[in-house]
Amino acid sequence: MSQTIGSDLTKVAVVGASGYSGEELVKLLLLHPEVELTVLTSRQYAGRSLKDVFPRFSNLPGAASLEFSSPDCQTILEKADLAFLALPHGVAAEFALPLCEGGCTVIDLSADFRIHDPETYEEFYGAPHPAPKLLEKAVYGLPEWRRDEIQKAQLVASPGCYPTSILLPCLPLIRAGLVQPSTIIANSLSGVSGAGRKADIPFLYVECNESVRPYGVPKHRHLSEIEQEISLAAGQKTIIQFTPHLIPVNRGILTTMTMAPSNDAHSTDQPENYLKKVTEIYEETYADEAFVRLLGTSGLPDTKHVVGTNNIEFAWRYDPRTGRLIIMSAEDNLVKGASGQAIQSMNILRGYPENTGLLL
Amino acid sequence: MSQTIGSDLTKVAVVGASGYSGEELVKLLLLHPEVELTVLTSRQYAGRSLKDVFPRFSNLPGAASLEFSSPDCQTILEKADLAFLALPHGVAAEFALPLCEGGCTVIDLSADFRIHDPETYEEFYGAPHPAPKLLEKAVYGLPEWRRDEIQKAQLVASPGCYPTSILLPCLPLIRAGLVQPSTIIANSLSGVSGAGRKADIPFLYVECNESVRPYGVPKHRHLSEIEQEISLAAGQKTIIQFTPHLIPVNRGILTTMTMAPSNDAHSTDQPENYLKKVTEIYEETYADEAFVRLLGTSGLPDTKHVVGTNNIEFAWRYDPRTGRLIIMSAEDNLVKGASGQAIQSMNILRGYPENTGLLL
Amino acid sequence: MSQTIGSDLTKVAVVGASGYSGEELVKLLLLHPEVELTVLTSRQYAGRSLKDVFPRFSNLPGAASLEFSSPDCQTILEKADLAFLALPHGVAAEFALPLCEGGCTVIDLSADFRIHDPETYEEFYGAPHPAPKLLEKAVYGLPEWRRDEIQKAQLVASPGCYPTSILLPCLPLIRAGLVQPSTIIANSLSGVSGAGRKADIPFLYVECNESVRPYGVPKHRHLSEIEQEISLAAGQKTIIQFTPHLIPVNRGILTTMTMAPSNDAHSTDQPENYLKKVTEIYEETYADEAFVRLLGTSGLPDTKHVVGTNNIEFAWRYDPRTGRLIIMSAEDNLVKGASGQAIQSMNILRGYPENTGLLL
Amino acid sequence: MSQTIGSDLTKVAVVGASGYSGEELVKLLLLHPEVELTVLTSRQYAGRSLKDVFPRFSNLPGAASLEFSSPDCQTILEKADLAFLALPHGVAAEFALPLCEGGCTVIDLSADFRIHDPETYEEFYGAPHPAPKLLEKAVYGLPEWRRDEIQKAQLVASPGCYPTSILLPCLPLIRAGLVQPSTIIANSLSGVSGAGRKADIPFLYVECNESVRPYGVPKHRHLSEIEQEISLAAGQKTIIQFTPHLIPVNRGILTTMTMAPSNDAHSTDQPENYLKKVTEIYEETYADEAFVRLLGTSGLPDTKHVVGTNNIEFAWRYDPRTGRLIIMSAEDNLVKGASGQAIQSMNILRGYPENTGLLL
Repeated sequence: MSQTIGSDLTKVAVVGASGYSGEELVKLLLLHPEVELTVLTSRQYAGRSLKDVFPRFSNLPGAASLEFSSPDCQTILEKADLAFLALPHGVAAEFALPLCEGGCTVIDLSADFRIHDPETYEEFYGAPHPAPKLLEKAVYGLPEWRRDEIQKAQLVASPGCYPTSILLPCLPLIRAGLVQPSTIIANSLSGVSGAGRKADIPFLYVECNESVRPYGVPKHRHLSEIEQEISLAAGQKTIIQFTPHLIPVNRGILTTMTMAPSNDAHSTDQPENYLKKVTEIYEETYADEAFVRLLGTSGLPDTKHVVGTNNIEFAWRYDPRTGRLIIMSAEDNLVKGASGQAIQSMNILRGYPENTGLLL
Repeated sequence: MSQTIGSDLTKVAVVGASGYSGEELVKLLLLHPEVELTVLTSRQYAGRSLKDVFPRFSNLPGAASLEFSSPDCQTILEKADLAFLALPHGVAAEFALPLCEGGCTVIDLSADFRIHDPETYEEFYGAPHPAPKLLEKAVYGLPEWRRDEIQKAQLVASPGCYPTSILLPCLPLIRAGLVQPSTIIANSLSGVSGAGRKADIPFLYVECNESVRPYGVPKHRHLSEIEQEISLAAGQKTIIQFTPHLIPVNRGILTTMTMAPSNDAHSTDQPENYLKKVTEIYEETYADEAFVRLLGTSGLPDTKHVVGTNNIEFAWRYDPRTGRLIIMSAEDNLVKGASGQAIQSMNILRGYPENTGLLL
Repeated sequence: MSQTIGSDLTKVAVVGASGYSGEELVKLLLLHPEVELTVLTSRQYAGRSLKDVFPRFSNLPGAASLEFSSPDCQTILEKADLAFLALPHGVAAEFALPLCEGGCTVIDLSADFRIHDPETYEEFYGAPHPAPKLLEKAVYGLPEWRRDEIQKAQLVASPGCYPTSILLPCLPLIRAGLVQPSTIIANSLSGVSGAGRKADIPFLYVECNESVRPYGVPKHRHLSEIEQEISLAAGQKTIIQFTPHLIPVNRGILTTMTMAPSNDAHSTDQPENYLKKVTEIYEETYADEAFVRLLGTSGLPDTKHVVGTNNIEFAWRYDPRTGRLIIMSAEDNLVKGASGQAIQSMNILRGYPENTGLLL
Repeated sequence: MSQTIGSDLTKVAVVGASGYSGEELVKLLLLHPEVELTVLTSRQYAGRSLKDVFPRFSNLPGAASLEFSSPDCQTILEKADLAFLALPHGVAAEFALPLCEGGCTVIDLSADFRIHDPETYEEFYGAPHPAPKLLEKAVYGLPEWRRDEIQKAQLVASPGCYPTSILLPCLPLIRAGLVQPSTIIANSLSGVSGAGRKADIPFLYVECNESVRPYGVPKHRHLSEIEQEISLAAGQKTIIQFTPHLIPVNRGILTTMTMAPSNDAHSTDQPENYLKKVTEIYEETYADEAFVRLLGTSGLPDTKHVVGTNNIEFAWRYDPRTGRLIIMSAEDNLVKGASGQAIQSMNILRGYPENTGLLL
């Protein structure tokens, strides 16, 4: 692979670089050997240097000269081949439209282009879809499941943090007909960075430390994309149960799911055989995936083993007492659940080895 | 109420006072206006003063003169009317037997006398029951459900932390026939004090901080008492799903449960009516309870609102999309889940107002 | 002691009850056997019930009927004998003035009346003193040092959290001439509740967790009252070094101080003798104090042993290598450093035993 | 630079890879482009694969095939050019001796070879030096100060975590005669990983969380190397004051130091001029250093800006009220304070650019 600096590098913009996902994107892109970060926007930090705002990154190559600017599509189109949007939903679409029209490749970390059906978007996000005509162009960028489409996409809608933690373990079993999708019950525990860098009382240190609480019950917005993808894999409209919780860690999502085996798969089998089938499906699906760590039927996930990495790890058990399958996954909400996964999509789009810049 | 010091006070022993539950017991008993703490045992701390081991309590009345001794049943029988056992399961029975025979009232915080059926005990605890003949004497001491039996008991088996967080919200609905008990799926998140004061690598600060993990999957020991009590309320043997998790807080348990409405209760009703029935049952059951805080259908529990208190709080929702009921509870694992609840039983036994010494 | 409810109770108002100190005050006052909490003000929470805003306290006697109102001096004067002001500096004086004129006793937790000299106030707080004529009336309410004056005061200026952690260990040695006050160097580590319940980015969970940082260097506002009191004890104007730090705990201040022995005390003595004198002075000064725990020359303080209590604990060492004395103290910034100490002053003022309502 | 795999790579052993420093070393070496990690020893983990013990690293190049073995000098000498010793003091010397004799380059992270004088070692470490004849060979490996000696060394004694945080800010000022070294008073706050991965009650989650405490007062072992290096820079034997504290973060050291300006530098100058001189010295000394971030006279350090990096950052102030200089530094105790700094020495020794493998 040729590495002559300045010639083949992908010129990249990060739009909305001041939140936690934006900050993680900037770090990963500065470390990425095939990328030149050329535009960094933030209304809040416009005019300040990267070194000043994110001193952690000041030693990284390319960091010295970077400065935040106000977001401006013309500048992005001039300076970048590819733009990451780390903006609130609704706002992201305002940038995606002119950038796509101008020929820029866009990887959007917001929810704006994840939901194919504008009515579902409106149901869950409480406003009409801001750019419905772009929806056809958009690919739901779960790399392990949409690699071919991502490769040809101009607009990638990078999945949400909770959906990633649920879909990667569930989709293979649904596709293989091993479980009844409508029996899925998912409980997720998320670190506080998931709430963003916003000055709200409920996210103050003293309010979150020594506290655990559910929120967004019973209809969290992420259900829209989770159910869309599960329905596609199941071949029929599927509703699931999902309860998120806030826990006092900076990063990480731990999701515990239970579900009933499908009658076909299960009734004719001994439990050991059923569990063996689950394990086989996982190994067939993910054995060659760089970022999926299969912990099997004896390991257990722990967010501390994935935080700071693009890995998701999961373990599974069959409970002979209840007849249910239990699956437990762990990921970093800011990496595999946001910025790392978006870069994984970029690597696919640009033809780089998928783990480039994502070793740890 | 008469308060002549030294005359009417209940003389109390705490056996095994060096763990986290034991420490909390000691604090609550020192603050209790009707108690004189006369014996404090700990193999580890024998010979040391209370002030030295637990400096926090040094100002409390009666603390100045207390000293840890080695556990010895004869001394306890001589000096105490009532003994709390804060010992590991298996060990507790060794003390309960001679103390009960000697006429002492015993409130056991271990699992030894919670399970009526010795075979179930052996199945879940991996050893034959250490004192099966005492089982008939024992009352499962969930005060809100066994007040009358506790009042007359000589041996109270105080419930486990997870069971308390599940049973108090579930039992009223099961008894009223509003839910299908076998559909209960409970996910619990516990603070690290639940693991006890033991020098094990997995419970070191660095191993628990910035970490979230499930454990004890799929057959945690507490299932034995949870299912015993649910089966009794349901009138039939019932199995449920339960997954505990360890989260980085010192104290607190947050439990999220889903369950299906019973066909009777639900099919003939509008969802609002069903939810109204649930709320009515909760209000009928718990309106006069000092330690149950009903958050209703709009509030949400938070461990920080109950930690340090004997309260349990819970909220409920009906999810019209899935047709399931969601119940979320929060308690302090060391207070309502252990020491506070044990003192609540003592108050019942001794005829004190149930919230004596448990205001906060 | 007579306890006929409603007759002898002190009627108390808490003005500004929505911050962390205000919340702690409310809890302690609800638990106080000699107090009836009659007025609770908060601009932010006006119209909401106490049970709604602080669910933790809903079981406490008197809590059921309490509601937040907008602050209004006329109402306070009608309903309360004594008012605690838990307001920002500058605002507190606006209430203190009419309340004192109206005959109410005032215990102010802000800095407004701690500094005798209005010029020093202006130097450190950046604005002219808001009520200079009240300054003569005000007593600096460090109970262990001003008991007699507090007893007769109408306006008590309750000390700041850092000053309490520094003054209680230093004043006895200075008064006894054992140390050179101008050599005092104090480093304090404070929990995040010290920053108040304000929605500011630097105090978000993610910004404080896994972070340690100094702030307010080199001239923190609390130096004004620390140096005032040290100068009074020393008999001459004294300047000290003080650096505060923010650490990821909810509550607690740990202060480490070094200082040089005075030439008199030291030169003629063996180090052991010097240390013995220090210990003697501490024992003479504090042996009978309910809230001062002397850890001596082998113990070490830990914030976890004082958090939630009105205690301050400290230990001391002589370093023969450097010839300096090292003193380390721990307290709860919200209790001994704020609300607990204010109640201690109230107890003195009202003639109650000083530890009433402050056992833990 | 040539990168033909297998030809020029430095073959490296990590001896004692199971502690927190060892784990960090392994991560950094797996990411290092010029290193092949060939031997990984741990008594505790012998026979287990790296992927099993440290799942976080399983995606890193070279990780797949690595396995822990029992420490054995013969194997290390056969398979490695350079060995890192991440062992307790006393034990490290047992390996350093045969490895040096066998021709291996050794970078020792323990204290065994940091102290030139065996009597000082015995005074501070409580046992005779285990290999005094090796002491002459050893270089105290603070890269910014001993680059030339490190380059030629066979045995590098990598500095301790606290000493690094104190020496880098202090040495330039001492060498330039700007401060009086014997007036240095340092207070350090360390994350719990500094205590190692040992199953001790005081380091359990519940004992450290919501706790802050001093320890090792007044004569922490690290004083021996701090004073050795300060004395060398000062040209005379110097004693300083140092108090370490444990705070509830996983990683990071924050050190706050005060010191008196030297009479020469200060008396003839305005404070602004003195401060300007300090800033000039820092810029002269560290402007070209990759890992020293100078925050100047308005910034303030925060451990969250350096954790996970090999950077140390520091800020300074002159306090005109006390006439003292205040310096505050932040570093990651496991990276710049241990493993990262050791790799920095390896880079120097092997002629690699000093920041190779240490960008973040």
